[in-house]
Formats: sequence, C-alpha cells, structure tokens
Amino acid sequence: MKIIIVGATGTMGTYLAKALEKEHEVIKVASKGADIDADITSTESIEKMFRQVGSFDALISTAGPTFVGPWAKLNDTTFRQGVEGKMMGQINLVLIGQKYINSKGSFTLITGALTHEPQVNFANASAANGAVEGFVRAAAIELENGIRINAVSPTVIENSPQYFPYFPGEIPTTMKELEFMFRKSVFGKVTGQVIKP
Amino acid sequence: MKIIIVGATGTMGTYLAKALEKEHEVIKVASKGADIDADITSTESIEKMFRQVGSFDALISTAGPTFVGPWAKLNDTTFRQGVEGKMMGQINLVLIGQKYINSKGSFTLITGALTHEPQVNFANASAANGAVEGFVRAAAIELENGIRINAVSPTVIENSPQYFPYFPGEIPTTMKELEFMFRKSVFGKVTGQVIKP
Repeated sequence: MKIIIVGATGTMGTYLAKALEKEHEVIKVASKGADIDADITSTESIEKMFRQVGSFDALISTAGPTFVGPWAKLNDTTFRQGVEGKMMGQINLVLIGQKYINSKGSFTLITGALTHEPQVNFANASAANGAVEGFVRAAAIELENGIRINAVSPTVIENSPQYFPYFPGEIPTTMKELEFMFRKSVFGKVTGQVIKP
Repeated sequence: MKIIIVGATGTMGTYLAKALEKEHEVIKVASKGADIDADITSTESIEKMFRQVGSFDALISTAGPTFVGPWAKLNDTTFRQGVEGKMMGQINLVLIGQKYINSKGSFTLITGALTHEPQVNFANASAANGAVEGFVRAAAIELENGIRINAVSPTVIENSPQYFPYFPGEIPTTMKELEFMFRKSVFGKVTGQVIKP
C-alpha cells in the first residue's frame, strides 16, 4: 500500500512512519525535512505535494497546529492558527486529495480528546477538533469510489510528557495504541468514525 | 433581563424575539433591518454593535451562514462561508462580547443535528457546528464572573419546510421546542452544554 503521512517529522508521525514502512511504501510529508515538504495552510502547496506523489492508497495526517495559551490571548487572530492549521489544513488535504487517491483509499485525520474533554488553554484545539470530526462524518457520506475517511482521537500522547501537566486526569495514549487506531482506519473498513483509544 | 438576539430577522430569531420581548428588553441584531445592523463576519462590526448596546445579560445567536450545495463544489473558498459565518462569526460574538456582558450573563449559540447526523450537501455546516460545540465546551471552563455558554442544537426547523426534503428521517424541531431550548440556556444554570430537543 502507498501511504502518505503528513506531519511525518512530529512525535506521532515519526513513530507511525517507522511502524508502517516495514510493510508499505510510506511517503513522508512535513513542513520541512521530510521526503516532500508541504505547507498545509496553503492549498497551492497541498496541490503541489499531491501532484508530486501521484496516486496513493491512504493518507494519514498527524498535523495539527493550534493556538495554545491563556484564554485572555484568544481572539480572532490567534484563533486562526487552529482554523488554518488543524482544521482547514486537514480538510483541504481531503478536498484536494480526493482527486489523487485510488478507489477504496482512505483518509485518516487527527483530532483529540479535547473535542469533548476541554482543558484550560486549549479552546482553539477543541474547536478545530470538533470541526474536523463533524467534517469527517459528513465527508463519509459524500466521498465516492469506496473512499473512506475517519478521525483518530487520542488523549495526551505518551511520548509527549511535556504536555502531561496540562491534561490533569487524562490517561496518556500509548504509542502502540495510537498506531493501532490508525491501523483500524487504514486497514479496516470503517468510515465516518472518530476512533478513540 | 437585557437580551441581544443576533439573527433577529431570521425564522428562528423572529420567533424568539416575539416570545421573549413580552418579559424582557430584547435588542434585535441582524445583517440588516433590525434595531442594530451588524456583520458577524467582521470583528469591527461586532465590536461596534456591542459598544452601541452597552452592558447586557444574555446573547442569543441564531446566525449561521454556511455553504449548502453539492460536494463537488466544496473547496477552500466555498468552505469559508461556514468558517467566517456560523463558526468564527459566533465565536467572535463570545470572544468580543465577554468584555461587555454582565456577571452571571450567558451566551447561547446555534449549532444543529448535522454535527452528528450528516446529510448530503451540508458538510460545511457539520464542520462549523462541530467547531462551535467544541468551543462552547472549552469556553465554559474559561469564562469568568459566572458567565455561562451553551449551544442549542435543533434538527430541521418546523417553520422551514423548504428544507424538509434535504433532511430525510429527521423529526422537525417545533418552534416551541426551539424556544424552550433557548430558555433552558438563558434562564437555567447549565454551562458548556449542547442542548437538544
């Protein structure tokens, strides 16, 4: 299977690339330092990336920039980080990528527990996650040729302990759990689902 | 109670204004033809509206422009209708309005069943709704001075029969149910909730 991983240089993307490239052709995409560099906040950059890759079977996204910080600093400008990044960045990967993906291919986007379990400082991510999850459910009934779409929604990630203090009470998602959630979406048959640990 | 209704000239806003103005001071806001005209896609226009109103006790929003149409026409440009309208328009009403609202005041935004029950042609609304609902849950733990926030999530509206063909299987929400959902948010004590019929 030919699998694109967007966000391939991050904590999640690095782990997933290593796990999947044993058995699959993995194309690593990131803002810099990957097989192909792409800026997901630019539709031109996304389009260029897909043209370079050509047809593919699965796209995994772990790319989710959002504004993290005090509520007092949240305004229309700071909010755009999550709107352009985790929300429209990922949505545009699908809206554009559907022209390049093979029949029966799949898109798997990243959201997170913040959609339903808010934490202080992360309102922008809660909104972006909610948007992506609503989009995933809607896109699943629109996409043709057997193309599927799901979201993977981990809690705070085991390999990102620097975030633990900001997520009181959340049991970290292990890297193995994260990998298996993505496996369920890519190699299973579900569509329109938000996959949780 | 001094209550701002944004979207006051629409189907929902007109009904709610009539129901609430018997017992409360209602300030009707809409893009045009209301007590105060405001464009919720402009932070300047929102700020100007709040300066005109002064302090208030509750804001109700029924304003939710989104792109409705075939999946093939959904792209970064058309998607912005829901991003700027129903999503950021309503979120900015809160981020800006929090400076003007009285202690123990409330914000009540509009979402809809499409968040979890997608229908063909409405992916943009599903995403915008999801964003607003994620934001509402997160804002509820950030807002200070006893200020509350909820979303009201109706199905297709009884008084909008032109939409019935697009919502197969959905039991319409009556205007009375809609009014009571808003009453629960404005006059009750809940916060961070998505109120359904």
